[in-house]
Amino acid sequence: MEEKLKQLKAILGEVSDINNAIALLDWDQQVNMPPGGVEARGYQIATLSNLAHVKFTSDEVGKLLDEFQPLAEQLDPDSDDARLLRVTKREYDKQTRVPSELVIEFAQVTSVAHNAWQEAREKNDFASFAPYLEKIFALRRRYADLFAPYDHVYDPLLDDFEPGLKTADVLAIFSELRTQQVELLKEIASRPQVDDSFLRQPYDEQKQWDFGVEVISKMGYDWKRGRQDHSAHPFTTNFDIDDVRITTRILPDYAASAFFSTVHEAGHAMYEQGISKALRRTPLAGGASLAVHESQSRMWENLIGRSLPFWEHFYPRLRELFPAQLGNVDLQTFYKGINKVEPSLIRTEADEATYNLHVMVRLELEIAVLENRLQVKDLPEAWNEKMRDYLGITPPNDSEGVLQDVHWSGGSIGYFPTYALGNLISVQLWECILQDIPDVNAQIRRGEFGELLNWLREKIHRHGAKFEPQELVQRVTGTKIDPAPYLRYLRTKYGEIYNL
Amino acid sequence: MEEKLKQLKAILGEVSDINNAIALLDWDQQVNMPPGGVEARGYQIATLSNLAHVKFTSDEVGKLLDEFQPLAEQLDPDSDDARLLRVTKREYDKQTRVPSELVIEFAQVTSVAHNAWQEAREKNDFASFAPYLEKIFALRRRYADLFAPYDHVYDPLLDDFEPGLKTADVLAIFSELRTQQVELLKEIASRPQVDDSFLRQPYDEQKQWDFGVEVISKMGYDWKRGRQDHSAHPFTTNFDIDDVRITTRILPDYAASAFFSTVHEAGHAMYEQGISKALRRTPLAGGASLAVHESQSRMWENLIGRSLPFWEHFYPRLRELFPAQLGNVDLQTFYKGINKVEPSLIRTEADEATYNLHVMVRLELEIAVLENRLQVKDLPEAWNEKMRDYLGITPPNDSEGVLQDVHWSGGSIGYFPTYALGNLISVQLWECILQDIPDVNAQIRRGEFGELLNWLREKIHRHGAKFEPQELVQRVTGTKIDPAPYLRYLRTKYGEIYNL
Repeated sequence: MEEKLKQLKAILGEVSDINNAIALLDWDQQVNMPPGGVEARGYQIATLSNLAHVKFTSDEVGKLLDEFQPLAEQLDPDSDDARLLRVTKREYDKQTRVPSELVIEFAQVTSVAHNAWQEAREKNDFASFAPYLEKIFALRRRYADLFAPYDHVYDPLLDDFEPGLKTADVLAIFSELRTQQVELLKEIASRPQVDDSFLRQPYDEQKQWDFGVEVISKMGYDWKRGRQDHSAHPFTTNFDIDDVRITTRILPDYAASAFFSTVHEAGHAMYEQGISKALRRTPLAGGASLAVHESQSRMWENLIGRSLPFWEHFYPRLRELFPAQLGNVDLQTFYKGINKVEPSLIRTEADEATYNLHVMVRLELEIAVLENRLQVKDLPEAWNEKMRDYLGITPPNDSEGVLQDVHWSGGSIGYFPTYALGNLISVQLWECILQDIPDVNAQIRRGEFGELLNWLREKIHRHGAKFEPQELVQRVTGTKIDPAPYLRYLRTKYGEIYNL
Repeated sequence: MEEKLKQLKAILGEVSDINNAIALLDWDQQVNMPPGGVEARGYQIATLSNLAHVKFTSDEVGKLLDEFQPLAEQLDPDSDDARLLRVTKREYDKQTRVPSELVIEFAQVTSVAHNAWQEAREKNDFASFAPYLEKIFALRRRYADLFAPYDHVYDPLLDDFEPGLKTADVLAIFSELRTQQVELLKEIASRPQVDDSFLRQPYDEQKQWDFGVEVISKMGYDWKRGRQDHSAHPFTTNFDIDDVRITTRILPDYAASAFFSTVHEAGHAMYEQGISKALRRTPLAGGASLAVHESQSRMWENLIGRSLPFWEHFYPRLRELFPAQLGNVDLQTFYKGINKVEPSLIRTEADEATYNLHVMVRLELEIAVLENRLQVKDLPEAWNEKMRDYLGITPPNDSEGVLQDVHWSGGSIGYFPTYALGNLISVQLWECILQDIPDVNAQIRRGEFGELLNWLREKIHRHGAKFEPQELVQRVTGTKIDPAPYLRYLRTKYGEIYNL
């Protein structure tokens, strides 16, 4: 049996190697590749993706997994091996259920849809994108049907990003969130607005970069096992636990963008850097889910990076770097400025109090289309209506409305809820941290993050993908994903800032 | 038959994709990778190399190639398809003849030998490296024996780098070269030395970089299909005809190093960028051989980059960038300085008049060991003796002698001659260029390289690996590889510089 486990791990190791090479091909495309390289890169990624798929879904893997079923039941259910077998089996059953003609058609449709979306957004012409989006929704419905019977057509789609999570649970969570966040937003709107104009002026790009590097170094991002580069859209990727890279984008006229994106991506990266090395080259060598991943990036970005204790430590340094811009801005003004609440059109620029509402707009529309309650052609109108209802603003055009996000053109339907769930989990974890490390804010005020990072490593990071998100959250916090802590957090924080 | 050719090309395309991904993994390791990444990168390269090998040497490829034999004879022998079948068959027969246990043993031995060499060089301790080198020579002999009968044990090794070339031919060429280069060197040594001290002072690194970029842009290196980065050792790599990258290394206190290495690598890169797109994703999408490749890099670096017409154009610009360093150095002094001849210990720093002699030292020693005329333990002494005979100097220690090059530790035996052969071919081609473009020097004097690059594209680049090196040289110049033009070139150039 030992021998066979070795055999399985050898195959999974090779699949990991191929997937890590694909990640590098993708990173390079976004960070370094000259424009000429695009055609060949497409071939390279397609060939390697196919190789990984063929190798992982081979009969040999299937046979080994079947043979292991009795063994798996004898193992300590929390051991690495038991979890490896379970997660591999889940993934194998999924991948083998999808016929390759569907995979190919999906790849082809999303590849042309991406260009169609880019053009449609440029020209503010949703109608030209609609036929592609219809095909994508149809393909996603076909995909979901491969996993019938299901409680909800959205379940199989969500499951790809949040293993084990059910749509009904998400809807229940979001329903509570929506009411209270919309209410909070109205209260904030009735108060005088805070000033953040000092953030919107020229800031030297190299100094922006350097400050971000200084901060995440203190937080614990390990540069011996990572690096930062520029890219059009910031992202984190890894080719191994010991090679986890981030990117950022610097806006010369807005200081907050690069800084918070660097901290956000470092949050993702420290998660990956903290995974147990015993899980290397297995399907467990990654985050538990996108939501859990987002809980880490959001915690560092928002709960820590936009907190007063954090800036009590770092603001003097920032002011030193930018005396002309911040010399007359005191700490309180700065703190309020970086936490300004303002309903806006673009999700990626949304603040903590409005962000989840953007996500809900998308989720509800996705579900309505999948349930055939809404036609793709009617999405723009439905979008605008929800924006009015939840955020109180109407997009002046579809480019800043329904066309703003890349995700649908790439077929990522089922993905958006993870952003909001990540916010919720981050505060659930934070409440536990406050119990376990009562002086954590004092530590942050001193620029010390070691105990905090160790807590996250111990409770979350080292486990990699061993536990499904709900199980992991339950283990650490004692409850499943729960909106109450996040709502408490918003009320306290913005109650103070806006004198509610 | 059409259908089967498509099938073969599909497999070869996938093999190319995998090999191109390996090239990226390697480029990234040398250019970007944080130190932590090294272990996983080893796995990734090993897995992908094995996948490419298994795919290429599959029975399916063998069967298709066999079925094509009759077809190949009906095709125009110079057509892409005929050459593709021929080159693929040659490579297939080679790769399938090597048992995988030898491949694995070779990889293991060279992997540890590399570290042993590094340590031995640092500590000037050849004896500690000798056992590894003995194993490597033994493995290379075993490899050669797989291709018995051969005319010379060195033939199968050379053939990996110079398809079709025979050791006897190389030895005949080198024998003529050696006598005359040693003689020329003695004459030069009897004349007053030229001054190049102005090159050896601080030169701003960014300006060094910018000047190199400016020059190779004018030469015709296409930045839309390439980029330049820093690395410890300059190299060129490509992931496609439309993504060919170079690296350089800037020495802050020596102006010539980065500049000539940039031009050298751009010479390699323009070759790869000039290959016909019809050959993309096939085994023909590369240079004809290492020597032909080197003929391109050396032509741009030396025949053009160290010529007087070239600097008549570029020297005013260089002086403008570095007035403090070059303000008092006139063109003639500069030209002589960058062409200074001086027997030196280190091959990679050798000038045009001594370089080939370094190569001969290595080739003769390699052959002597393979023929069992020399024992590995006696290499240092034999090395020093040859250095005295050919270059008139004795290495003070083995680190600057027999231990200086990385190649043997990596098992690259059969590789060194390609450097010298590249020099010879470059001048053979240059003599043809002077006939076909009589005013080429006037064009260079005006900073125009278009007609020259087009000539190279037409005669050499576009063919990729369709022709073996001797065949290609014969087609273009009317003779095989021949030392006479190079010797004429050296005599003329250094006759003028040293008033011989």
